[in-house]
Amino acid sequence: MTEMLVESARAHRLDEQDVRDEIRRLFDVRSTSAARYGPQFSALWKSASRCVGGGKLLRPRLLLGAFGALSATGAHGRVFEAAAVRIAAAVEVLHYALLLHDDVIDGDLRRRGRLNLIGTLLEERRAASLAPETSRADPRDLHWARVGAILMGDLLLSDVHQVFAREPVPPHMRSLLLDLLDHTITESIVGEQLDVALSDGVVPSDLDAVLGMTRLKTATYTFELPLKAAAILAGSTRRIQEALGVVGGRLGFAFQLQDDLLSTFGDAAEHGKDAFSDLREGKETAIVAYARMTTEWRRIEPFFGDPALGVADALTARRLLRECGAEAFVRSLVADQLRAAGSALSSPGSGIPCALSGFLTRLMRTIEERQS
Amino acid sequence: MTEMLVESARAHRLDEQDVRDEIRRLFDVRSTSAARYGPQFSALWKSASRCVGGGKLLRPRLLLGAFGALSATGAHGRVFEAAAVRIAAAVEVLHYALLLHDDVIDGDLRRRGRLNLIGTLLEERRAASLAPETSRADPRDLHWARVGAILMGDLLLSDVHQVFAREPVPPHMRSLLLDLLDHTITESIVGEQLDVALSDGVVPSDLDAVLGMTRLKTATYTFELPLKAAAILAGSTRRIQEALGVVGGRLGFAFQLQDDLLSTFGDAAEHGKDAFSDLREGKETAIVAYARMTTEWRRIEPFFGDPALGVADALTARRLLRECGAEAFVRSLVADQLRAAGSALSSPGSGIPCALSGFLTRLMRTIEERQS
Repeated sequence: MTEMLVESARAHRLDEQDVRDEIRRLFDVRSTSAARYGPQFSALWKSASRCVGGGKLLRPRLLLGAFGALSATGAHGRVFEAAAVRIAAAVEVLHYALLLHDDVIDGDLRRRGRLNLIGTLLEERRAASLAPETSRADPRDLHWARVGAILMGDLLLSDVHQVFAREPVPPHMRSLLLDLLDHTITESIVGEQLDVALSDGVVPSDLDAVLGMTRLKTATYTFELPLKAAAILAGSTRRIQEALGVVGGRLGFAFQLQDDLLSTFGDAAEHGKDAFSDLREGKETAIVAYARMTTEWRRIEPFFGDPALGVADALTARRLLRECGAEAFVRSLVADQLRAAGSALSSPGSGIPCALSGFLTRLMRTIEERQS
Repeated sequence: MTEMLVESARAHRLDEQDVRDEIRRLFDVRSTSAARYGPQFSALWKSASRCVGGGKLLRPRLLLGAFGALSATGAHGRVFEAAAVRIAAAVEVLHYALLLHDDVIDGDLRRRGRLNLIGTLLEERRAASLAPETSRADPRDLHWARVGAILMGDLLLSDVHQVFAREPVPPHMRSLLLDLLDHTITESIVGEQLDVALSDGVVPSDLDAVLGMTRLKTATYTFELPLKAAAILAGSTRRIQEALGVVGGRLGFAFQLQDDLLSTFGDAAEHGKDAFSDLREGKETAIVAYARMTTEWRRIEPFFGDPALGVADALTARRLLRECGAEAFVRSLVADQLRAAGSALSSPGSGIPCALSGFLTRLMRTIEERQS
């Protein structure tokens, strides 16, 4: 998928490098001004800058790809191209902020096989505080590291708003962008709360709740936000903005379900996640929610949420999840969502221009075939 | 102090009720739209709405009192009076957001003798989940409650930015307000991080670090933010804005030191805090930082940070803190700050109008005499 998005952005002369430069600039400005507040605050920005970067920039690329495709027909053309680059960078920074608080909430020290900010701050702290011969961990070190992630999440969330609030765009456009940001943050937080409600036993794990959580927690900010922001910045009609909201919701939902499938059934070497980590953590996914409704669940349950799950048992659990029909069910959900997105795209009433339909149709294909 | 601020605001026809209505409106709008996302999210807004209200509105009153006093001479007069009320409400909401994350960080379930949001969510959860005969607490309930406070802090922080970003004020004024918000959030977070650095042993407790933390964590958002926002909204000169930044920093620092004095030496029945809670929690205040440098510290230290500290021992610790000179030292710091604020106010170069000098001079007197 990454290659395709790069290609589309290149075709419209919007390079990922512009976004990387913008994000880098934000962190550099912050790191520099942090220095006047002493070494701890400065170190927090430096560690954050190292930990959060390096992603595939899926969200900014979606935004810029859609902006390029919409600018030919939108009322504003490419007038707000520089704003689009800055908003694209802010969308990525929002992703970082949400991940930081998600890691605090889940108590995770790693993400996708690397130390996250909490893990990094913890290692830095331990390196600084422990004499080599001391092996006992100080619980205050973990507290310090988690506080760093809470505070950095707050700082980045504030930065995202600062970017949206300051863009030199017409008042009506800024108001639309702020509405979109507000809607996105609300849905992402509802999704996060629902995820925790499921894992803390506040809400019983049923398929509806899990699907709702999956849709809200990531689909809105990963797909709906960049696509609608692109439409607003290009000056596309209200009808197109709304159609893209629907399409984005569908694509994002499919993307997240595909992500769950990859984590459970995919090749860890290819997708770069810890193999079986979802199983070990007892993550409530659509796959698990479906399996719970089958008679096989009583054989899967003992493996589910076992932090010490060995490879042989994990492979058994994976086989059982396949045999009970959960994999096929979730694949069919992905196909349904992509089909619905496709018909929303091709509906004559949507007004979505051909260039964007083509871009999104190719994107849908890559979601379906995605291996990483 | 409260009475005086009320009086000043009334004299300028800006009633605290306007701010209370504005805050109420924000929570009502959010609670209503939360309902569509299901009962958990709706319940979170309702609980937050109950827990965070009811304060003395010190910050909004400062803002409106200063706005009233500045509007006679400021370039914009009372043109942005409605904006001032909304910004004043947002400043109070920022206070809520910072307190929520502070409580998460400190692991507190209460604030000023009442259950905070975490304590409230925990009680609600236990009431809902435990059969009456079950007495064992589920650790997931506390997790759920703390996550609620993290997420509500994020939502309120976003709301504050939305208010600042959307005010229909001239672009230059919005930019100044956004700069001020940015500066305030940065300093508050630096202060919070420094507070945690002190309590987690990342930074050795010395007087300089504790005084820096005291100034940054609350003085900026409690005094500098409302006073400078008032000056921006009234259209006061850049010189007045800057002078108010200096005065606000001094007053806020004095106010927080006075707060520490009250918590340690004051009458709990009057100021409404838990008596000796600072001592029991081992809170690093200027009082403690001074005491550490005296020979009496070895007699105080055993009491410091003992969660089970009894009244007799607490009274002994209090007496020792007095005898070692810590109380007198911090009182002299308060006096120094108020004197410096006074000379900044009366300096002919500050340009601060007489009405505001009078308002702030009376405010300084109430800080000095403050008992609650």
